[in-house]
Amino acid sequence: MSVNLQVPGELLAVRGVRLSASAAAIKSAGRDDLALLVFEPGTTVAGVFTQSGFRAPPVALAEQRIAAGGVAALVINSGNANAATGKAGLEDASRICDAVARSLELAPDAVAPFSTGVIGERLPVERMLPACQAAAGMLSEDAWHAAARAIMTTDTVPKAVSSTVVAGGHTVTITGIAKGSGMIRPDMATLLTFICCDAAIAQAPLATMVREVADASFNCISIDADTSTNDSFVLAATGIAGNPRIAERDADYAALAAGITDVATRLAQNIVRDGEGATKFVTVTVRGGATPAESRRVAYTIAESPLVKTALFAGDPNWGRLCMAIGRAGVEGLAQDTVDVYLDEVQVMRGGVMHPDYREEDGARVMAKEELEVRVELHRGAAGAVVWTSDLSYEYVKINAEYRT
Amino acid sequence: MSVNLQVPGELLAVRGVRLSASAAAIKSAGRDDLALLVFEPGTTVAGVFTQSGFRAPPVALAEQRIAAGGVAALVINSGNANAATGKAGLEDASRICDAVARSLELAPDAVAPFSTGVIGERLPVERMLPACQAAAGMLSEDAWHAAARAIMTTDTVPKAVSSTVVAGGHTVTITGIAKGSGMIRPDMATLLTFICCDAAIAQAPLATMVREVADASFNCISIDADTSTNDSFVLAATGIAGNPRIAERDADYAALAAGITDVATRLAQNIVRDGEGATKFVTVTVRGGATPAESRRVAYTIAESPLVKTALFAGDPNWGRLCMAIGRAGVEGLAQDTVDVYLDEVQVMRGGVMHPDYREEDGARVMAKEELEVRVELHRGAAGAVVWTSDLSYEYVKINAEYRT
Repeated sequence: MSVNLQVPGELLAVRGVRLSASAAAIKSAGRDDLALLVFEPGTTVAGVFTQSGFRAPPVALAEQRIAAGGVAALVINSGNANAATGKAGLEDASRICDAVARSLELAPDAVAPFSTGVIGERLPVERMLPACQAAAGMLSEDAWHAAARAIMTTDTVPKAVSSTVVAGGHTVTITGIAKGSGMIRPDMATLLTFICCDAAIAQAPLATMVREVADASFNCISIDADTSTNDSFVLAATGIAGNPRIAERDADYAALAAGITDVATRLAQNIVRDGEGATKFVTVTVRGGATPAESRRVAYTIAESPLVKTALFAGDPNWGRLCMAIGRAGVEGLAQDTVDVYLDEVQVMRGGVMHPDYREEDGARVMAKEELEVRVELHRGAAGAVVWTSDLSYEYVKINAEYRT
Repeated sequence: MSVNLQVPGELLAVRGVRLSASAAAIKSAGRDDLALLVFEPGTTVAGVFTQSGFRAPPVALAEQRIAAGGVAALVINSGNANAATGKAGLEDASRICDAVARSLELAPDAVAPFSTGVIGERLPVERMLPACQAAAGMLSEDAWHAAARAIMTTDTVPKAVSSTVVAGGHTVTITGIAKGSGMIRPDMATLLTFICCDAAIAQAPLATMVREVADASFNCISIDADTSTNDSFVLAATGIAGNPRIAERDADYAALAAGITDVATRLAQNIVRDGEGATKFVTVTVRGGATPAESRRVAYTIAESPLVKTALFAGDPNWGRLCMAIGRAGVEGLAQDTVDVYLDEVQVMRGGVMHPDYREEDGARVMAKEELEVRVELHRGAAGAVVWTSDLSYEYVKINAEYRT
């Protein structure tokens, strides 16, 4: 299942980025499950990573190496998250990186590792080493589709988006890939997203940009409230576009950030559209909050409530469940009689009670749609928030009660 | 569906408490949906109520009247929560109370109202007024079963428990009823619980006791993380048992509190056993936390994770999902390498990685049981927490996608 999500069309090569995918039979044989991204010298790289207290060993290694600078290759596997594997898992991740570094004649700490899949099992390193070598021998600028496929787990459609922006008078090309459809409630980024561009930008503004982009895209989605142990979002800029190197938050920074945010938002929304068991794509908008934090709490509480999500699945305009969710979102001193609720353009509630003109069939018409907006107006201040989410269906239970076993 | 839950057997009459049930066709005809509890003069009453920002009008009224003292009757309806109904809802609740007061020759503010059911619709007051009158004419000490049935909504089994304790050399009788199987993540109490005893106890210690009991029972359960707009837990003591009136936290207080806590815990567990779609009754225990708050966060995050709950439904010992949940519980400075995890007596994880002796079939054997414990040892301090929960099944989705429409 997925909601209005197509297999990606043409993807633009990003000058200075070469990719490949290979098969290591990590969880099962017969598909590519290892991807390699290699950057030209001079590329700047920044990332954000899960805030989970149980973050996986490869996440710790990738974060440390990206922060230190000089990362020139990313090696990514699906089928096994290398999480809850302790020191042995860290050694496994290092061995994979070492193999890639040897094949590409890079320093070992120039390779950053990423894993996604089942938690708690050791990586099958012996099967992965030859696949790393094979991947290193097949690099091309045109393997974005293959890489997007190789990092999928329960995803039903690969996620990849391309765009261009103009910065400093030069056209910059941006292409990104992502994966994820369950355990999606990112706390910094979502499970494995890699966006590359050929802009020239220094490390410090790139590190700022990756956080800002994450907050405006991946940190606005939730499929099941469950934050992963492996969330990682990496942004790389090869510097080949010819634009004057971006060193601060100027107009060129803004232009590039807008382009990256656009790609990231489309990838984030694609993850929700391919959410486990999703039959709806729902935008939860909160306006008039006293603070951004309380606006986000209200939006997330609605988006993650099992009772709201089952009503969305049923197409039932059960707006009482929206009241319930708003009520338990921890908004201090909430005055019910200022709260308005809309389903798309239909005003369901005014001042904390049913709008006098509301008719159930109008609510039902909106709830029957595949894509809809739930909007809450708190009338407490000028802050707001948006969260994109999916519904809770039989298929969600099926996927997660049958996965792995 | 329910997990090892029987229709209640014999219930003990509580001297000084008379009850009745009647039919008002609130949501549908043909069943009792209104219950009345009436106390002898001298009864002390205390309660705790939902912390929801969208608390229903009857909750506000009941809390205010119980706090003011002198409440002598409780009128409870199922089928309609009288929530998100604003001032009109408050007037409706007052009219119901007035009718009961007239029938019983009580002051209007001696009646406290309680409602449970669909949110956002006005009460059918005209149908309820004659039912109130009928109920007032049928009061008896032996109608506990009927009252327990009348307050049910999606419950499949009525919940009622009796017990006796000795306080001050006198036998005290305790009987309580409760309802609830969805929108259950109480934040002070759970949707409608009424426990009566014939002990003599002053208002102040009773108010303390109701909070302590709620924290040890109803505030330890979660079915679906969704806190209701109407949660209320009321404790009444008629004073007829003959024990010296309890005025402070002495040995008699402790004996009575232990008895009330026992009844409340069994009612709370019965609510989980009858959780919407429940096929498992699961005790989540956290030990070795640095604070009670962080222990509770870990226990609740496990209990409410959709991925953990679907694994429980599947009987899948997918302990990686437990790591995920522990990781996202917001434990500051969590050291993975001190975390141990058990399924009943089977140690799954030691020091943050799979226990070397763990075999999947041992975990699967525990996960196949109808009742099991998930235990986490954090080794950070001496605090702990327990949460009782159920699983997430197809039936949960079915009930909540088909309810109301």
